[in-house]
Amino acid sequence: MKKIFIFGITGSIGTQTLEVLNRENFKREFKLIGGTINSNFKKAKKIIEKYNLEFLYINDYKEKGSLPQKYRNCNIITNYQKLEEYLEFEKPEISLIATSGFAGLKNTLTSIKFSKRLCIANKESLVSGGDIVIKKIKEKNIELLPVDSEHSAIFQLLEGEKSPSNLIITASGGSLRNTPIEELKNVTIEKVLNHPVWNMGKRITVDSATMVNKGLEVIEAYYLFDKPKIDVIINENSHIHSIIYFEDGTMKLHYGKPDMKIPIAYSLTYPKRSYKDEMIPLKNIEFKKVDYQRYPSLKLAFEILGNQKLHIAYNSIDEELVELFLNKKIKFTDISNILKKCILEIDKINIKINDIEDIYETDKISRNILKQYINN
Amino acid sequence: MKKIFIFGITGSIGTQTLEVLNRENFKREFKLIGGTINSNFKKAKKIIEKYNLEFLYINDYKEKGSLPQKYRNCNIITNYQKLEEYLEFEKPEISLIATSGFAGLKNTLTSIKFSKRLCIANKESLVSGGDIVIKKIKEKNIELLPVDSEHSAIFQLLEGEKSPSNLIITASGGSLRNTPIEELKNVTIEKVLNHPVWNMGKRITVDSATMVNKGLEVIEAYYLFDKPKIDVIINENSHIHSIIYFEDGTMKLHYGKPDMKIPIAYSLTYPKRSYKDEMIPLKNIEFKKVDYQRYPSLKLAFEILGNQKLHIAYNSIDEELVELFLNKKIKFTDISNILKKCILEIDKINIKINDIEDIYETDKISRNILKQYINN
Repeated sequence: MKKIFIFGITGSIGTQTLEVLNRENFKREFKLIGGTINSNFKKAKKIIEKYNLEFLYINDYKEKGSLPQKYRNCNIITNYQKLEEYLEFEKPEISLIATSGFAGLKNTLTSIKFSKRLCIANKESLVSGGDIVIKKIKEKNIELLPVDSEHSAIFQLLEGEKSPSNLIITASGGSLRNTPIEELKNVTIEKVLNHPVWNMGKRITVDSATMVNKGLEVIEAYYLFDKPKIDVIINENSHIHSIIYFEDGTMKLHYGKPDMKIPIAYSLTYPKRSYKDEMIPLKNIEFKKVDYQRYPSLKLAFEILGNQKLHIAYNSIDEELVELFLNKKIKFTDISNILKKCILEIDKINIKINDIEDIYETDKISRNILKQYINN
Repeated sequence: MKKIFIFGITGSIGTQTLEVLNRENFKREFKLIGGTINSNFKKAKKIIEKYNLEFLYINDYKEKGSLPQKYRNCNIITNYQKLEEYLEFEKPEISLIATSGFAGLKNTLTSIKFSKRLCIANKESLVSGGDIVIKKIKEKNIELLPVDSEHSAIFQLLEGEKSPSNLIITASGGSLRNTPIEELKNVTIEKVLNHPVWNMGKRITVDSATMVNKGLEVIEAYYLFDKPKIDVIINENSHIHSIIYFEDGTMKLHYGKPDMKIPIAYSLTYPKRSYKDEMIPLKNIEFKKVDYQRYPSLKLAFEILGNQKLHIAYNSIDEELVELFLNKKIKFTDISNILKKCILEIDKINIKINDIEDIYETDKISRNILKQYINN
């Protein structure tokens, strides 16, 4: 039995991972030992009951005093150092990092210490972590398995390939892909959150509409796959998850159902494919070029590609902007406009990213610059 | 420098192989030492001049007496045993078998003796040779590289895959794909030979229109890829060369220009890709189900799949039928009808395929049964 620990066990990816682990053949192979949550203890209790967790870390529970030390046989932890002690003792073979946002970086750094395989669903660990995280993973000879459908697709397509390859990441175009550009300014939150294909968390759904999400994926792919040439193309029904191409003109396309459980399962069982699913019928495949007028933030991602300082800023500022948008403080198109302006400001600041501390520092500076901008 | 020998050097695949070998980076890596032709000595002379062949075998030259012993520095051979002596002495690392038809089997058997890698463009070597040829190749630990675009695509897609996979072979639908079924009976030879996508030899173009070619490819894939589940789907512009799929619902598609030089080059340079070509723009991809009323011979191929005796018969009889059609002795739709009737006859005959001699015997019997049928 392989021991698994899930960071972000009550979120969208966490929940779908639990569904995978609940399949009979996964139950035989994997043992879920614990997880982390932000605050949803009610949901976590059900998970503890069903999966017999051994320990659970709670990040941000308002009334920590009211938490039990144990729920059933599960130890309830609210101290991150204590969590690390548990992980050191248990040494789960696999850590799945499904925490959302910049906070996931910390979990990735923790997992590198104790696990042999990292299944990363948290984009920020690589977007912000960059070469520093990649270097740590390589030094410890850890397997790095992407969970994101596009990166999993590329990982799968690259299997067995010896020649250098270039990548095309596909995009659905998000919830506003058919909204006239002039209407984007006054679009409602409800409309933005109504994604046509994928059922995901709130931030990622907003980020799909701006394609900041695709920008983060481009940056993530840049680090994951050793800095290849990257393009983005729109495939509206999200059946093509990504493409690799070779100098002889050949391309390999990854086709499948838009269902996160498939790449999640692959990241756990690689190099095997233990997950069984129906074969979807081959439908016609349509591609559309990206209209960068509609998605200026994706253009911005390409402009800053390779500049780790700005990768960090791009993510941290967007994280704040999406929050502001969801709280009705700014309009939808403000996200792209303010992001661009803040990135230009941060570009002027002299910071070198040499270690993890520099990453946290850049994150802080970025959020401050945004705060200043909003306050003015 | 790797030595290459080409069986069928003046044919369509032979000619395109020469174009590949004429590229600067291929010139540096490969040395073409010789080839075989059926009868076109005029064309062969130009090849000898340009590529400095060391020896050339001519199969069927009407006035053998008039042939020189040498042309330039190239020895001209008309005795197959003599050819084998040359090959034994030279031991070309790579043999490319581009001979057309059942005759290619003999060349494959010869190559197994002397080469480390077989690049097989001749379908019949596997369709008729079946397990017996596969066994010989495995025993001698020879690399078997398919040249056919569909099989090369599958081979490329399977690289690095560990789990058992199923295949979908794509088909263009051939030259008559849009001709109403009721008009097929009286279709002209010119119309049949006018293939919409691929520029190929005559038999294969007729076989594309009947989809006997696709039937042969299904049988070839059956042996090449260890007897997987196989399907056929139509992709009219032939940009998708084949598809593999997995139990988790994932598919990998191979996309590229319909240009035989790419799979030819891959078969020579594998696991590298040394051929350079422009990247074609990603076009929309359309699939159509196969209409088995239009293509009864493909249905027949699936019906006999796994029965080596009938594989041999399917190919040998079709070879004769295409010849009869091109000589205006039978109509287009007769090919499928007569093929089916003869296969039913041969199914009743008791022959076991235990060795190469049985293959030749079955070939002879099949052609005789057709002859009897035509004469009645």
